[in-house]
Amino acid sequence: MIPARLPAGLAIAAIVATSLSGCAAAVIAAPLAAGAGVYKSAQDRPSKRERKRAQQAAPKPGQVYTAPDGSKVQVTTLTTLPPPSGVSGAPAARGSTAPAGIQYLYGSGEAAALSIQAYQALWNYLKVEIGYRRDKGQVRSVVLAPGSTLDNPRFEPCGKRPMAVVLDVDETALLNLGYEYDEAVRGRAYDPARWARWEQTGADKIAAVPGAAEALAAARREGFTIIFNSNRSVASAAQTAAALEQAGLGPADLFDTLWLRGEGEPSGKDARRAKIAQRYCIVAMAGDQLGDFSDLFNAPDAPVLARRNSVEGTLLAPLWGAGWFMLPNPVYGTGLKGGVDDIFPPDARWTDPEEKK
Amino acid sequence: MIPARLPAGLAIAAIVATSLSGCAAAVIAAPLAAGAGVYKSAQDRPSKRERKRAQQAAPKPGQVYTAPDGSKVQVTTLTTLPPPSGVSGAPAARGSTAPAGIQYLYGSGEAAALSIQAYQALWNYLKVEIGYRRDKGQVRSVVLAPGSTLDNPRFEPCGKRPMAVVLDVDETALLNLGYEYDEAVRGRAYDPARWARWEQTGADKIAAVPGAAEALAAARREGFTIIFNSNRSVASAAQTAAALEQAGLGPADLFDTLWLRGEGEPSGKDARRAKIAQRYCIVAMAGDQLGDFSDLFNAPDAPVLARRNSVEGTLLAPLWGAGWFMLPNPVYGTGLKGGVDDIFPPDARWTDPEEKK
Repeated sequence: MIPARLPAGLAIAAIVATSLSGCAAAVIAAPLAAGAGVYKSAQDRPSKRERKRAQQAAPKPGQVYTAPDGSKVQVTTLTTLPPPSGVSGAPAARGSTAPAGIQYLYGSGEAAALSIQAYQALWNYLKVEIGYRRDKGQVRSVVLAPGSTLDNPRFEPCGKRPMAVVLDVDETALLNLGYEYDEAVRGRAYDPARWARWEQTGADKIAAVPGAAEALAAARREGFTIIFNSNRSVASAAQTAAALEQAGLGPADLFDTLWLRGEGEPSGKDARRAKIAQRYCIVAMAGDQLGDFSDLFNAPDAPVLARRNSVEGTLLAPLWGAGWFMLPNPVYGTGLKGGVDDIFPPDARWTDPEEKK
Repeated sequence: MIPARLPAGLAIAAIVATSLSGCAAAVIAAPLAAGAGVYKSAQDRPSKRERKRAQQAAPKPGQVYTAPDGSKVQVTTLTTLPPPSGVSGAPAARGSTAPAGIQYLYGSGEAAALSIQAYQALWNYLKVEIGYRRDKGQVRSVVLAPGSTLDNPRFEPCGKRPMAVVLDVDETALLNLGYEYDEAVRGRAYDPARWARWEQTGADKIAAVPGAAEALAAARREGFTIIFNSNRSVASAAQTAAALEQAGLGPADLFDTLWLRGEGEPSGKDARRAKIAQRYCIVAMAGDQLGDFSDLFNAPDAPVLARRNSVEGTLLAPLWGAGWFMLPNPVYGTGLKGGVDDIFPPDARWTDPEEKK
C-alpha cells in the first residue's frame, strides 16, 4: 500500500458538495479547511522527509494501482503503517493487551470522533451563537460569577473586554502519548516526579487532540484569543509552550495565553480563571475534567452520584455543548472514583436469575 | 438535606435569562423544556410515591432552611441520597473500587456532560442545519450510499421521504445499569447467555443516557421520526420496547421504529439501515460504536491505528457532530482492542530518563 496524505482543499470541497450545503454548512466545514490538512494525530504526523516524499508522489486517496505482483491496491489516507506483529525481543508487556481506558482514548476511532465532535460544537458555538450575541452586545462570560453555587449559578455581562476561549492542556488540547506509553509498558501507577520529568523532556512525543488544531486556528482567525489554563508546572512553561507549538496549537505565552500552576499553589483553577477574566471575556471553556469549568464541582468528599448529578440535574446542564465543552478521558482524573455501590443506585441493580437459583 | 426536584420551567427560564439570549438560544434551551423535567437519570428517578411527596413539598432549589437542630440547610436538586458507606454484610467486591471504565461511564459527571453535549449537538443540528436545508429542499441522507468507501464517501438526496433520526439503543439511548452492576459485582466477563437473560428481565433497571429523553422528545415534536437500530435480539423486542418506554425514550414499534437482530443474522447494521432508508430519509445517526454509522469501519483485522485514522483522517471527519453523533463508552465495544505497541505510534514513545540510567 502507498500511504498518501489527503490535500486539505479536497476534503472541504467534497464534503460541502456532497453533504453540507445549508446555512450552517460553511460554519461547520470551516475548521477543517483551517488547518494545514485534515484532522491529524501523532500517527498522522510524518517526518519532514516522509512528507516530502508523499508530496512528490501525491497519489489520490481511493485511487487504485496495479501492484508489481499484479494485484489491485487501493490508496488510503494513512501516512504510516501499523507496527509489524510479533516484534521480536520486546518485553512481554508490550505485546499484551493494553488497559481498556488506554485502548479507548488513544486507540479507538470512537474517542477520536467524540473529540472532533466537541471541537466542532465549540467552533459552531463561537460562530453562530457568539457571533449573534456579539452583534447585539449581549455577550456574557461562561465563568461562574463570584457567589454562584452549582444550584444557583450566575453569569455576568462582559462589557468591552476582548473575547477569549479558555481550555485545559492535557487530554483536552494535547494527548500525552509518550507518557501514557511509558506508564502502560511498565505497568506503573501515576508518579508526580515522573510526570515532572515528562513535562521537561516529552514535548515532541505528543499529538493534538483530534479536531483541536483546526478549531483553535479558526477561532483565532475570527478574533478570539486562545488561552490555556493548566495544572502543569510554571517551572516547565517553556517546554509546555513548545509541546503546544509542536502539536499545532500555539502560540502560548506565560501569564497571557498560558496559565500554569505555581510552586505550592493548589490544584483548583478558579483563581487563574479569575485572573484571566480580569482582562478577557471568557465566552467558551473546554476541558476533560469538571474542574476545568468550576472548582465547585470538586467539593471534598462529595459522593459519586452527587457529583454526577451536579452536572446533569442542575441549571448548568444546558451549558454542555453550549459554552462548556467536554473532551473524553476515561484514563485518569477526579471523576474516576467509587465502588460498585457508590456508582449504581439501589433501584437499578439487577441479579442474573440464573445466579438466584 | 431535603431532596427536591427542580421544576422544568424554572430551569429554562433561569438559563435563558442568565446565559442564553441569542438567536440560537431558544434552539439550544428547547430540549430542556421538552422533557418532563431537567436531565434525568436512574438516580434521579423517584418512585411514584416519592414524586408525589416531592410535588407537595416543592421547596425551591437553593432555598435555605433552618433544620430542627438549628443548623442552616440548603436545598439541592438531588432526588436521592447516595447509599450509606460501609454497608454491612455486603460481599467484599461491592465495597472495592470499580473498574475505571465503569467509574467513568456510569459514575462520573464528565461522561454525563459528554452525553448531554452530544444530544445538544444533535438537537441543534436538526433545528438549525436540517431546518434550513428542509426549507431549501436540499436534505441528504447521512447513510453512506451504496458503493461508498471510507475514503470515497457519497451521500444521496432524500426526495420526499419523511425525515428520521436513527440511533443505537445500548449505551447510546439506554444505560444498562443493572447488567453492568451484576457483572462488576461478580467480576465476570461478558456472557451472551447472561445478556439474553438481561434483555428479558432487566427493563426496569436502566436509565436514559443523560440528554437523550429531552432531545428525542424535542425532535419528535418537530416532526422527525425516531428509529432505534440495535443488535438486541428480535426475541426480546417487547422487553426492549418496554425498557425504552421506562426510560422515557419511546415509543418503539418493531419493524417500524425498532429494528433488532434476527436469529442467525450478522452483527452488522448496514442491512437494517438500508431497510429503514427505503421508507425514511435518515438525516442524523447516533451511536457509541463506529458500527452504528457504517459497517465499513469494522473491516476484519484492521490494525488499531488504521481504524482510528478512518475516523479522523478521511472525508468523514466533518460529520462528527454534524449528522453523526457519538456517545461515550469506554466499557465495551469493537474499539477496545490492541496492545501498547498497536496503540502508540513509534515516534511518540517516551522513556523516563530516570529509567535509562
